[in-house]
Amino acid sequence: MNDCLFCKIIAGELPTTKLYEDDQVIAILDIMPVNPGHALVIPKTHSERMLETSEEEGAQVLSVAKRIGKALLETNLADGVTLSVNNGEASGQTVFHTHMHVIPRLNGDGLVSWKHGEYEDGEADKIATIVKNQLT
Amino acid sequence: MNDCLFCKIIAGELPTTKLYEDDQVIAILDIMPVNPGHALVIPKTHSERMLETSEEEGAQVLSVAKRIGKALLETNLADGVTLSVNNGEASGQTVFHTHMHVIPRLNGDGLVSWKHGEYEDGEADKIATIVKNQLT
Repeated sequence: MNDCLFCKIIAGELPTTKLYEDDQVIAILDIMPVNPGHALVIPKTHSERMLETSEEEGAQVLSVAKRIGKALLETNLADGVTLSVNNGEASGQTVFHTHMHVIPRLNGDGLVSWKHGEYEDGEADKIATIVKNQLT
Repeated sequence: MNDCLFCKIIAGELPTTKLYEDDQVIAILDIMPVNPGHALVIPKTHSERMLETSEEEGAQVLSVAKRIGKALLETNLADGVTLSVNNGEASGQTVFHTHMHVIPRLNGDGLVSWKHGEYEDGEADKIATIVKNQLT
């Protein structure tokens, strides 16, 4: 994709701080980190969203993200690790080339989890039926 | 694990709203959803954190999470989808059996992404060197 930021980084046309590279993925530091060491794992083949990647690509992205997460813990750059992937503008995705965030978490870093709600009676079963019918 | 909430759900000892099940994973509705349809994909073999799962298990968790994410979009239960995994107490993990959140995102749902910072000169290179040395 000619106008894709991450395709340009993968092609070496834009500077980056690379952590890892293989045939399928690269991992770089996010230039605007939530916490220092915040990494992005990016499949080399362009796809807009993780939901559209192949099984093999998705698995390799997760595998490399896990390796980086463990390295962040082992080097004391993190006390915990959040892995996250946004799919679509409504989710907050801003670069439309699949990427998994590897976010170092620090004790007391103040990053707040989203508030959880509750289902009304019968609502969960109704939703589950809709999703299950679509999955089959 | 005798005292593990998710192991009890997998064993059928606690009620749940199941979306999907195969030999390796189950997917259920989170009883306290961030948005309705919020699902959890859980490997059947007990591990504390995603970082410690096998390649095969991790890949299957992601694969099923992607299928559920697509079903949420296709049924208009979501406008976007956030996939996330917390690893460790510092990350906000509360149930210590590996699970991936599949969070339906709605246009204007008001869920705020974490604030991004910046690196000082030379800081990113220094951190990248530490992580790369640990990866090799």
